[in-house]
Amino acid sequence: MKASSLKNTFIQIRSNKLFEIFVVTVIIFSALLVGAKTYDASNTSTMLLVTKFLDWFISAFFLTEITIRFLAEHKKRDFFKSFWNIFDTLIVIVSLIPADDAELAVIARLVRVFRVLRMISIIPELRILLVSLVKALPQLGYVMLLMFIIFYIYAAIGSTLFEAINPVLWGDITISLLTLFRVMTFEDWTDVMYETMEVYPLSWVFYLTFIFFTAFAFLNMVIGIVVGVMEQENAKARAEKLEEDGEPSLKDISAQITSLQAQVNTLKIDKH
Amino acid sequence: MKASSLKNTFIQIRSNKLFEIFVVTVIIFSALLVGAKTYDASNTSTMLLVTKFLDWFISAFFLTEITIRFLAEHKKRDFFKSFWNIFDTLIVIVSLIPADDAELAVIARLVRVFRVLRMISIIPELRILLVSLVKALPQLGYVMLLMFIIFYIYAAIGSTLFEAINPVLWGDITISLLTLFRVMTFEDWTDVMYETMEVYPLSWVFYLTFIFFTAFAFLNMVIGIVVGVMEQENAKARAEKLEEDGEPSLKDISAQITSLQAQVNTLKIDKH
Amino acid sequence: MKASSLKNTFIQIRSNKLFEIFVVTVIIFSALLVGAKTYDASNTSTMLLVTKFLDWFISAFFLTEITIRFLAEHKKRDFFKSFWNIFDTLIVIVSLIPADDAELAVIARLVRVFRVLRMISIIPELRILLVSLVKALPQLGYVMLLMFIIFYIYAAIGSTLFEAINPVLWGDITISLLTLFRVMTFEDWTDVMYETMEVYPLSWVFYLTFIFFTAFAFLNMVIGIVVGVMEQENAKARAEKLEEDGEPSLKDISAQITSLQAQVNTLKIDKH
Amino acid sequence: MKASSLKNTFIQIRSNKLFEIFVVTVIIFSALLVGAKTYDASNTSTMLLVTKFLDWFISAFFLTEITIRFLAEHKKRDFFKSFWNIFDTLIVIVSLIPADDAELAVIARLVRVFRVLRMISIIPELRILLVSLVKALPQLGYVMLLMFIIFYIYAAIGSTLFEAINPVLWGDITISLLTLFRVMTFEDWTDVMYETMEVYPLSWVFYLTFIFFTAFAFLNMVIGIVVGVMEQENAKARAEKLEEDGEPSLKDISAQITSLQAQVNTLKIDKH
Repeated sequence: MKASSLKNTFIQIRSNKLFEIFVVTVIIFSALLVGAKTYDASNTSTMLLVTKFLDWFISAFFLTEITIRFLAEHKKRDFFKSFWNIFDTLIVIVSLIPADDAELAVIARLVRVFRVLRMISIIPELRILLVSLVKALPQLGYVMLLMFIIFYIYAAIGSTLFEAINPVLWGDITISLLTLFRVMTFEDWTDVMYETMEVYPLSWVFYLTFIFFTAFAFLNMVIGIVVGVMEQENAKARAEKLEEDGEPSLKDISAQITSLQAQVNTLKIDKH
Repeated sequence: MKASSLKNTFIQIRSNKLFEIFVVTVIIFSALLVGAKTYDASNTSTMLLVTKFLDWFISAFFLTEITIRFLAEHKKRDFFKSFWNIFDTLIVIVSLIPADDAELAVIARLVRVFRVLRMISIIPELRILLVSLVKALPQLGYVMLLMFIIFYIYAAIGSTLFEAINPVLWGDITISLLTLFRVMTFEDWTDVMYETMEVYPLSWVFYLTFIFFTAFAFLNMVIGIVVGVMEQENAKARAEKLEEDGEPSLKDISAQITSLQAQVNTLKIDKH
Repeated sequence: MKASSLKNTFIQIRSNKLFEIFVVTVIIFSALLVGAKTYDASNTSTMLLVTKFLDWFISAFFLTEITIRFLAEHKKRDFFKSFWNIFDTLIVIVSLIPADDAELAVIARLVRVFRVLRMISIIPELRILLVSLVKALPQLGYVMLLMFIIFYIYAAIGSTLFEAINPVLWGDITISLLTLFRVMTFEDWTDVMYETMEVYPLSWVFYLTFIFFTAFAFLNMVIGIVVGVMEQENAKARAEKLEEDGEPSLKDISAQITSLQAQVNTLKIDKH
Repeated sequence: MKASSLKNTFIQIRSNKLFEIFVVTVIIFSALLVGAKTYDASNTSTMLLVTKFLDWFISAFFLTEITIRFLAEHKKRDFFKSFWNIFDTLIVIVSLIPADDAELAVIARLVRVFRVLRMISIIPELRILLVSLVKALPQLGYVMLLMFIIFYIYAAIGSTLFEAINPVLWGDITISLLTLFRVMTFEDWTDVMYETMEVYPLSWVFYLTFIFFTAFAFLNMVIGIVVGVMEQENAKARAEKLEEDGEPSLKDISAQITSLQAQVNTLKIDKH
């Protein structure tokens, strides 16, 4: 009986608007704390004590909040069926790593950064945005595979021909892939090209065809997304139109006229 | 009686086409004056005197023009209900700061630059353009929030890991945010990356995932705008179609046929 | 009589397919000649003689071709009503400047470059492309005006505040406009920014807001074009649909039913 | 009889799902082998022997696979009618070049890279993607010709005026074309411009008009693709609508009413 009333309290807390605002406030506060720690001024002993205490408080609060949400769940299993619950739980658990330990200090600090991600799980609009971003990914899968094949072939050619010229840029296939990504972003790509053109004067063909192919594949990717979005919009528009106000279809009109014709025919027969 | 006739004169002046053209001319002239002042040749004593006089004249003219528009308003309160009236009044008032005072000289010169903005308030097409730009902003609000969260997390990680390598680029979270914006614009981003890769050979993951996430969020933003624009266009097209020439809907046709059927039925009954 | 038969010959020549192909060949040839002259190897005395002769031949040929087209015109006045005829005539006339004169040599060489533009006037698809490009320009007029106002204000602020820091980049308003265009293309913009941030640590606000405003205006321009294109496409689709096969409108159907109702009514009256 | 049963075995092998997966595995493996060879660690004598053996095995396997596919074909001629069969055969044949020969070693290694392209011919989705990319090319033909004319004119002007300033960038028309491509990608374009502005202070006009023209032509190209994609989508949507469920057209409805009117008329005549 007591457990049940406690559960009701938890459910009430979870649904409380003020509680929600308070959670958001604590998340923003934890984000600011992460930012504040990057300033040198925050390394005085007083500040260290304050941030340590705040960090402890935020960890405790997040643990409490996730516990309340877990206890407020009717079926405990359903809690872990929601992606966002698992997401929040993971962030809370990993940010429990103690920041005192010298060795783990940096990792602990980095892990606390991810608390900012809870902002996404708490604001519904951002959740929708992220879900739609993730949904768009598989559509792009094959274009990305094609792009990777282009990159791989050019990287293999590049590291075969240009390794002797500049091993820092073309040492092996991994480094070459990075160099090609640099060329794709147009970042000092002519420096890379002029260097190899001194040995192979025709190597501009390598760079220009690469830029052309990747730009083309990229364009294709963008168009793919735009067409996908347009189709969704059109489907939505069509669905809306159907629901609108029971507008009859041309088929209905045709059927109506046919029944009228039958009626007129009866008229004829009646007369005889 | 006299005041009323004066008001009519003001209304006539405000609506005068020539007066409008003259206002635009003065605005263009004040813009040219601002530009001319940046040339060293304009610092001779004669030129200084001329520009000072011109400046005084433009200030006086703008003050007169806004006063005429204010006096020509039927209800004085309505004048300040229009955003563009407030916009113009503010620009005129702040550009009254005297440019002689040595201390305020630079500020006064800067403030005079904003007179160019009056070009926007006087040309209706530019006003529409600006209003539509401002209207598009809230639509993008959540994408920008998501983008800021991405930036913030990467800036926190960057200033934690890379501060020791280059405090000029990764000193604290504000500087890191600026460095990341630089990386997003692809401006010498490989220099930033190669530097950190000497200490953390895997730090290319940091840069590539960041570029990927921001490019993706940016793409999403662009698509958001395109879809928004398309929806507006479709809504406009639908509204136009309805207004066009009283084209009956299929529902009307159906009702017409039903009434015809009723008529034929009466025919039947009549006969009996 | 003789003049008339000569005119017919000219008309025949103008319409001759082989003649057209020959004109295109000469244009391509003149383009190659312009290119060939840029190679040092072409400066031997033999080559100079050959290119001089070829140049003379191309000039003579183009003059002949334009004369034939002029003489083949029925009404001489109509010849100069076509933009492309004036375009061709101008190119032919200016490329008659003798290339021998030492002083005019460079200008004469440059003017010969524009013969390549005749490629556009001779290929109908390129003409259509150019016309559509020119037609798209006024649509963008106001966005470009808005962009220029943004540029002008920032250039005035920049040359006021940063002139003392680097007169090469911010010397006067013209130089500042060029520097801002550079910033807009993200070309070493951080170098420009870091320099001014040493004096004004907050000057990143200047650059970031500028990039934001111009990017936004640019996006607006692109969307403007896309919407314009879409509207054209939709209008074309609607026009096609109407022409298609005399599909009756719903209004026609409604009128047809009304006439049927009148007919049924006559039936009623007849009976009485 | 025996040959026929052998053929059936080949057809069975070709259609076997496991065989297909095995082919994909070998392709991925050959790609990894190409990548592995770029690492210095792979140059030990043991590794050389292993990679040599693997290379031999992959060549033999690809040869066997293409032979099986050829033998499984009903009409031997049809085999070479498929673009992808020719594509695969070519890749297999050229990768038979022995890698031992010191002179051909680099070429042989490069040619083996193209085996990765078999990934495209084996995955249907990538084949569709590539076909659609190739189909989009001719649409862009004229825009690219126009762009080339712009490039050519600017390169001719550039190499005429700026050759004396920097022969490395403006030496002849080919080098100038490359420099202009660099300017189009905004890669250190201000360095190129500032250099020529020292001699010709107005040469910024050259660069800015060039950037403007190419950006405009590029925009036109993108819009061309988008419109092409939209038209395809609309055509598809229309075709789908027609097939949907035999919805009658307004013309059918009109004909139906006309026949009804005739019927009512007969009624009238009947009565008399």
